[in-house]
Amino acid sequence: MENFVWHNPTRIIFGKGVHKQAGEETAKYTKKVLLHYGGKSIKATGTYDAVVQSLQAAGVEYVELGGVQPNPRLSLVREGIDLCRKENIGFILAVGGGSVIDSSKAIAVGVPYEGDVWDFYKRGKSPEKMLPVGVVLTIPAAGSESSDGSVITDEEHQDKRSCCADFMYPQFALLNPELCYTLPKHQVAAGGADILAHILERYFSPNDHTDLSDRLCEGAMISLMQNLPKVLEDPKDYDAWAEVMWTGNVGHNGLLGRGRKEDWSSHGIEHEISAIYDIAHGAGLAIVFPAWMRYVGQKNPDKLCQFAVRVFGVEAEGKSKKEILEAGIRHLIAFYKSLGLATTLTEAGIGDDKFSIMAEKAVIDGPLGSMVPLEKADVEEILRLAL
Amino acid sequence: MENFVWHNPTRIIFGKGVHKQAGEETAKYTKKVLLHYGGKSIKATGTYDAVVQSLQAAGVEYVELGGVQPNPRLSLVREGIDLCRKENIGFILAVGGGSVIDSSKAIAVGVPYEGDVWDFYKRGKSPEKMLPVGVVLTIPAAGSESSDGSVITDEEHQDKRSCCADFMYPQFALLNPELCYTLPKHQVAAGGADILAHILERYFSPNDHTDLSDRLCEGAMISLMQNLPKVLEDPKDYDAWAEVMWTGNVGHNGLLGRGRKEDWSSHGIEHEISAIYDIAHGAGLAIVFPAWMRYVGQKNPDKLCQFAVRVFGVEAEGKSKKEILEAGIRHLIAFYKSLGLATTLTEAGIGDDKFSIMAEKAVIDGPLGSMVPLEKADVEEILRLAL
Repeated sequence: MENFVWHNPTRIIFGKGVHKQAGEETAKYTKKVLLHYGGKSIKATGTYDAVVQSLQAAGVEYVELGGVQPNPRLSLVREGIDLCRKENIGFILAVGGGSVIDSSKAIAVGVPYEGDVWDFYKRGKSPEKMLPVGVVLTIPAAGSESSDGSVITDEEHQDKRSCCADFMYPQFALLNPELCYTLPKHQVAAGGADILAHILERYFSPNDHTDLSDRLCEGAMISLMQNLPKVLEDPKDYDAWAEVMWTGNVGHNGLLGRGRKEDWSSHGIEHEISAIYDIAHGAGLAIVFPAWMRYVGQKNPDKLCQFAVRVFGVEAEGKSKKEILEAGIRHLIAFYKSLGLATTLTEAGIGDDKFSIMAEKAVIDGPLGSMVPLEKADVEEILRLAL
Repeated sequence: MENFVWHNPTRIIFGKGVHKQAGEETAKYTKKVLLHYGGKSIKATGTYDAVVQSLQAAGVEYVELGGVQPNPRLSLVREGIDLCRKENIGFILAVGGGSVIDSSKAIAVGVPYEGDVWDFYKRGKSPEKMLPVGVVLTIPAAGSESSDGSVITDEEHQDKRSCCADFMYPQFALLNPELCYTLPKHQVAAGGADILAHILERYFSPNDHTDLSDRLCEGAMISLMQNLPKVLEDPKDYDAWAEVMWTGNVGHNGLLGRGRKEDWSSHGIEHEISAIYDIAHGAGLAIVFPAWMRYVGQKNPDKLCQFAVRVFGVEAEGKSKKEILEAGIRHLIAFYKSLGLATTLTEAGIGDDKFSIMAEKAVIDGPLGSMVPLEKADVEEILRLAL
């Protein structure tokens, strides 16, 4: 096990009705917020009204900025920064999923910075401070509600980049599984694949002696894979939603990756796909992961075999490592398919014409991943395996 | 799943050599500390010297108070409170295990309080503030390094009581598995039983629909039970110690019990045993748990069966619930025995002469536990089953 620091200060308030605490929680920090959100859905479901009423009841003034899209845009972030400066706003309340939260974090690091916020994403410059952020989560997927990172897209240059800092955790996050009842099925499936991917990226590590975190990851994956089909079958199954939403949080709050190198190459590759093709991030991950597993399994099969045996109950006796890991990959693909997700680029209508530039961009900051570090040629091969 | 709040602000700094960061971390809060510890062991192992050198290097003045014993005494807590007031100290650095940390927390809530600190333990009065506390952990067992509670004993009245508050988390905790190399085998075994008990107390719950936390608990228990025998076999097995120490922390930082009622009746019963007989807390738990399981298993067997099947791999097919849960209990007893622990009161030299008064005290604040709430007569029966 490697030395590590574990510190996640976000206060998670979880359960039925908790989104109505938005005003009360926000009022602990400020009397004026930027209310940042996506589009029509939070208005159609009543979440918007409930949050606004809660802010008003708590005496918190709000300025609105809607319009966040999946793969949140740099242009809107810049607009939010200008708005906060103009309105003298010191707190961002994100009402939405990972895109809204990441856009909020980007605005929050941009406001106190004199230069352009894209510096923190594109050029590897580290932010030094940010405005505090609160979250009302409506989509369990990204885990950004208690993570230290943000991913946004420079839509003009089709460039999707991340920024992390140890003060980028939201102050609080309100997680009410009831808000998930109205999510479209494809969004539930893609979100579920994203949650699973966050756990897989931590699970696949070059480190030995990571018994506890291996077991925690495996337990979280099994629980997730048992409950996701339930919410697709019955979108008002509170208990199943609670498991999915809580797993989305625990899977990305940092705990499951302590003491080990994490991988994250599948995320890196997927970011290049969704930067160009505007596929949902989780849907892209369901395509990349099986191909990544096939490729790295040739070089480092043991952890993939453990995954197959412990998570999917693959019987190892009498099988070669290759057969065991292939069985695990088949189970994973079957799981993605059961959610209604495409598991190849071809199914998603994506061809091979931009593989070279995607692979080039994916490794622009150096080799991807840790279990098997990947150069440009490796990434191209994985993309080909994903066709 | 029940509504819950999850917030644990303690910064865990984990790994080789991290105890030498004590001065640097303490200096972020204060220039003068109470250095609180137990007896000779931290001096014999060099931990004391390393911590003192680290404080000196960081320019932090220290006043010492050693002498903390297992089941930490109220009288020493009162002495510490007087010392902090006299020396105008605003920060306690605990160097030791759960007893030292709990004694430190008791001093920390006592200093700013005008009345007697025992009010918070005995009479259910809630503290309103405390001095900040930092920890150098030398024994992985109690999990107090990032919990919100403290347990101390009024030795004059043989009364062991706890106090909890949401601000009672230490500011930081330095966890170096190397510091465990010199622990006596019995202390390792009792500490391991305590870690396991913290997970069991959360696992056994009357709530349904706790899939994720069930799986996390099961994974943590399996990992712990695989690694404890390794450290008993080879006390310098860093990797195994790292698993044990990290499990001790994760098992009691609160996460594994979110969304469910926890039980804690075995702890309640054990506190009455160790208040009178001065047996190590973990050793007492190894005696109470099998008896508690036998008793509550008659009334609520399902979770005990799940425990047997998932944690010990008991084959359920063709067996009655009673047979399955009995098999689980047998495995648990065998595990305790493999650590060299007594699993009955008789083996520990404890008779039945004080059962009535112990049971009376155990339920003084109302029925114990949640999976099956226990009255005085139930506690007496469990004690008899433990003979």
